[in-house]
Amino acid sequence: MSDTPEEEFELPQLYKRHVFACFTQRPPNHPRGSCGSLGAQPLWDRLGKRVEADGGGEIGFTSAGCMGFCSAGPLMVVYPEGVWYRPTTTEDIDEIYDSHLKGGKRVDRLVMILSR
Amino acid sequence: MSDTPEEEFELPQLYKRHVFACFTQRPPNHPRGSCGSLGAQPLWDRLGKRVEADGGGEIGFTSAGCMGFCSAGPLMVVYPEGVWYRPTTTEDIDEIYDSHLKGGKRVDRLVMILSR
Repeated sequence: MSDTPEEEFELPQLYKRHVFACFTQRPPNHPRGSCGSLGAQPLWDRLGKRVEADGGGEIGFTSAGCMGFCSAGPLMVVYPEGVWYRPTTTEDIDEIYDSHLKGGKRVDRLVMILSR
Repeated sequence: MSDTPEEEFELPQLYKRHVFACFTQRPPNHPRGSCGSLGAQPLWDRLGKRVEADGGGEIGFTSAGCMGFCSAGPLMVVYPEGVWYRPTTTEDIDEIYDSHLKGGKRVDRLVMILSR
């Protein structure tokens, strides 16, 4: 089977960009850690407020369960680009929002880079 | 700001395709309904089993909170293509898995189409 879709009809994109942020909260002493225990909540609160204030409906924001890489959190991924970010401050969130989500320019300094 | 990213370095994709499935469960009589009350669990169980059996790590599968369109559930979205699906049977899941997730061919009959 080919990996090139044979589009039978044009499907409009619901969102220009869609962010998924990990809301997993494990207990403080849990060996895997979690985005919640690494301080995710104020970051996602800020992100939610930016999306809501924007109001244009072009940025989607959805809570996600564990996406792995728990020790690297708090983690969020932006599609369609598939860029994983590890913000640590609300200023980081604002920069990702303004630069990437609205402007299309990746914020390199906040990207999660895997060695494999 | 331009919407064309000025890539400073190549960022490998973590997953070839990443599926987010709504795990929201509201009570049976809730006015908004939910994917859970529309029978999502056996579908996402099946999807999880397919991903696990595949074992190649090229398909990501993450649980998601409410993505809206609750009455159209159970809902899942596949990135990077941004295709929203509303499967109703485990056979639907298998078809989406084999055709789209592995083969790159969209399953038109299961796509959520919005009129706006």
